[in-house]
Amino acid sequence: MAAPDPKNTLIEPDLQLAANGGLRHLLTLDGLPRGLISDILDDAERYLAPAGALPVRSGALAGRTVGNLFFEPSTRTRASFDLAGRRLGADVLNLDVNTSSRKKGESILDTIYTLEAMAVDIMVVRDASSGVPAYIAQHVADHVSVMNAGEADVSHPTQGLLDLLTIRQHKGDIAELTVAIVGDIRHSRVARSAAEGLRALGVRELRLVSPPSLAPDPDNVNGAVILDDLDEGLDGADVVMALRIQRERIGNLEGTPGVEEYFSRYGVSRARMRRAKPDAIVMHPGPMNRGIEIESELADSPQSVITRQVTNGVAVRMAVLERVHRTLHGG
Amino acid sequence: MAAPDPKNTLIEPDLQLAANGGLRHLLTLDGLPRGLISDILDDAERYLAPAGALPVRSGALAGRTVGNLFFEPSTRTRASFDLAGRRLGADVLNLDVNTSSRKKGESILDTIYTLEAMAVDIMVVRDASSGVPAYIAQHVADHVSVMNAGEADVSHPTQGLLDLLTIRQHKGDIAELTVAIVGDIRHSRVARSAAEGLRALGVRELRLVSPPSLAPDPDNVNGAVILDDLDEGLDGADVVMALRIQRERIGNLEGTPGVEEYFSRYGVSRARMRRAKPDAIVMHPGPMNRGIEIESELADSPQSVITRQVTNGVAVRMAVLERVHRTLHGG
Amino acid sequence: MAAPDPKNTLIEPDLQLAANGGLRHLLTLDGLPRGLISDILDDAERYLAPAGALPVRSGALAGRTVGNLFFEPSTRTRASFDLAGRRLGADVLNLDVNTSSRKKGESILDTIYTLEAMAVDIMVVRDASSGVPAYIAQHVADHVSVMNAGEADVSHPTQGLLDLLTIRQHKGDIAELTVAIVGDIRHSRVARSAAEGLRALGVRELRLVSPPSLAPDPDNVNGAVILDDLDEGLDGADVVMALRIQRERIGNLEGTPGVEEYFSRYGVSRARMRRAKPDAIVMHPGPMNRGIEIESELADSPQSVITRQVTNGVAVRMAVLERVHRTLHGG
Repeated sequence: MAAPDPKNTLIEPDLQLAANGGLRHLLTLDGLPRGLISDILDDAERYLAPAGALPVRSGALAGRTVGNLFFEPSTRTRASFDLAGRRLGADVLNLDVNTSSRKKGESILDTIYTLEAMAVDIMVVRDASSGVPAYIAQHVADHVSVMNAGEADVSHPTQGLLDLLTIRQHKGDIAELTVAIVGDIRHSRVARSAAEGLRALGVRELRLVSPPSLAPDPDNVNGAVILDDLDEGLDGADVVMALRIQRERIGNLEGTPGVEEYFSRYGVSRARMRRAKPDAIVMHPGPMNRGIEIESELADSPQSVITRQVTNGVAVRMAVLERVHRTLHGG
Repeated sequence: MAAPDPKNTLIEPDLQLAANGGLRHLLTLDGLPRGLISDILDDAERYLAPAGALPVRSGALAGRTVGNLFFEPSTRTRASFDLAGRRLGADVLNLDVNTSSRKKGESILDTIYTLEAMAVDIMVVRDASSGVPAYIAQHVADHVSVMNAGEADVSHPTQGLLDLLTIRQHKGDIAELTVAIVGDIRHSRVARSAAEGLRALGVRELRLVSPPSLAPDPDNVNGAVILDDLDEGLDGADVVMALRIQRERIGNLEGTPGVEEYFSRYGVSRARMRRAKPDAIVMHPGPMNRGIEIESELADSPQSVITRQVTNGVAVRMAVLERVHRTLHGG
Repeated sequence: MAAPDPKNTLIEPDLQLAANGGLRHLLTLDGLPRGLISDILDDAERYLAPAGALPVRSGALAGRTVGNLFFEPSTRTRASFDLAGRRLGADVLNLDVNTSSRKKGESILDTIYTLEAMAVDIMVVRDASSGVPAYIAQHVADHVSVMNAGEADVSHPTQGLLDLLTIRQHKGDIAELTVAIVGDIRHSRVARSAAEGLRALGVRELRLVSPPSLAPDPDNVNGAVILDDLDEGLDGADVVMALRIQRERIGNLEGTPGVEEYFSRYGVSRARMRRAKPDAIVMHPGPMNRGIEIESELADSPQSVITRQVTNGVAVRMAVLERVHRTLHGG
């Protein structure tokens, strides 16, 4: 085990779990029991329907209110939680909040207490500051759950779960797999949560591939293989996940190449994928910069499972919403 | 009786009430019959549920559409009306409107006529200009109701009702009470509506406490006691309501103190509350500037009923939405 | 027949229709069979209810999700589609998108694929660029439909349908009518779609009246009479449709008059309407610039059917949403 991450020290070991072991909040995949993760993925499978069929619905959250508090802009994660809540029968309240209004107005806890008082029982929170979801979870009432929908560069647990589900669907037992995550590892909450989830499910080998300037903090690596050579990273891989890179990062950090050089050195393409297993899958959390971190043709090829990730995203969010609700209210 | 307020002269005596005495629009608490106010509060009690329980729902507005027209930004009042409407079974249409789009586009009446033509039957309106809700009420079709959700510095009747409900729940008969409202009385629609409601229910003594520069227009006082000394204002009070102060007002008006001086002179704190009755309650309409108009520890103390006000807000909005609907359509 | 409009060449003849002739996408009224248009109008009649009555609802889209993707701002069309979808039982996802976020983020197709993967089966798209709705329709999955909710200056087919319905309701058989459209014909997708629909239903005479600088491209005229004299245009007309003019266009194009001159020469007024038939109706797509393209008193007179157009807008949108759903899923 590596040293504990000081960024996560706000989370008490059991803050996510109820006394009976049920999921109480979803803040991070770090430390979540392997069996619980598998159960969530199993639940999510039940929320999937064929393309074009009616989406699976349930009345599990009928009469409850879910609050979408995105203090950082988002389209897809917000829409995914919105649909997940509605397909479970909940009322979903999408709140117009941003950091600036928070600064001039009330504290984040007062916003939360206000929503609590309106019977908003599940708070879906995205925030650019580390520690905010756990901080909220420590202060809410006993009947309220917090869902981390993206926290600084620290955690994005529902993204991690949807990645695990997608890998499991296509490649089976994660303990048999070699997974390569490619791109801006240092600043990626997507990479962090995927790595935590993969570790929990006993991934055989996890490779984190990036330019040296975007490599992870060595204290956060937990047994993953750190590489700066893409060919080496892809060699024999079962799963390749390309990360979105912020354009403003390219060429600005010392040792980070420009756009064209970035693609030629770290862009995942059909040609580079020849190093991976022939049946390897390609993933991306979206939105994609086609031609930068991923070749456009590869994104549209049969190897790509990118839209499947989106579909799985709604299903895992339904699964965790239903599960925290069940922990609090039974049923 | 003081002289009538010229700002309110647009409201004909009966504009709010149907011929049978039922609530037709909710524009102001000024002049609303005492019995009607009590009935609304009684209705609201039926929309309350214990924290963590399923919110009370009803199908009273099933199939109807409520339009939330906030020409002035709002998070909590908008969310409160949104949830109130949905919990009554209505479709709620939240409209992106602001003064600037109104200027370049159509007149406010044309916006209203457009919504009317889409079968939006209840218009919830917040506007920074005085007289707008009454003006709209004078022009809508016979089957349409207008809810004032905040009007300039003039009126915020659902806030007044939730304040009355909160006081009644904790202190019983309002005719026995001394209530102190503290802060920027001059610019506060919250203070105006609370004062109107308290007067209608026969409050024993109402004290309006503020720096001289933020004192109310003497013509608007209607028998309230005007004070600039907080200790005097709190002396023996049953209910203390601190108002939000706009930071830009502090120190800018002649005679208005700076932030620290404001708190030391007009901030409601545990220490200052020793002047009030031992079981006095503390209220605030939110969002709070902790440490300016109210001491943070007091806001979180057992004396504080601030989150209860929020809960009551949803309930009174359900009560008035249901009531205007009943006036128009029976049932 | 005039030469085909190069802007529309992206639309294959049958892109809108399924093999069985059912409506698959709604992209343009150009080329839509006359019988299909009539059937849509007949359907829409069934979605109308008297003012104040409960809006007509149906469960036709229950469980389905409609995505409102407005890449160009809109209040009324967006609200109209939102209510139409909800009154059919669908979940409606209103997306915050604009051209700038599209530029910095993902391609429009990736946004569409993402929504598709979330089981958003009907995409309502407004975009300032010509060809976007057809481009999307060419790329979506077999179970997905695209609704054009306003496309550059090219097409606004649901507006055209609501105009046809309004005319039919008040004037009966369109083949007997003389219709005058007045204003900025050159830049108006409203005029284009109305003209296409009127032509499909065999309008006797269509007159397009504008200042010479705002006259249509002669290649787009298709037998309409082009006029720059309002009195001549209104002479004996059964239907007069005034178009909204962008204020920034007035006086800026060579040959375009200023505001006052615009009203005196092209403003539709009670006085000018004396040239039309005594029972002629007056239409406007909204939002109106009262006193510029239309006299305020005329807009509020019994001849005006402007709010009726809005009511019909919800009904025709329900009709086309229900119809594309039926084409895809039967029922």
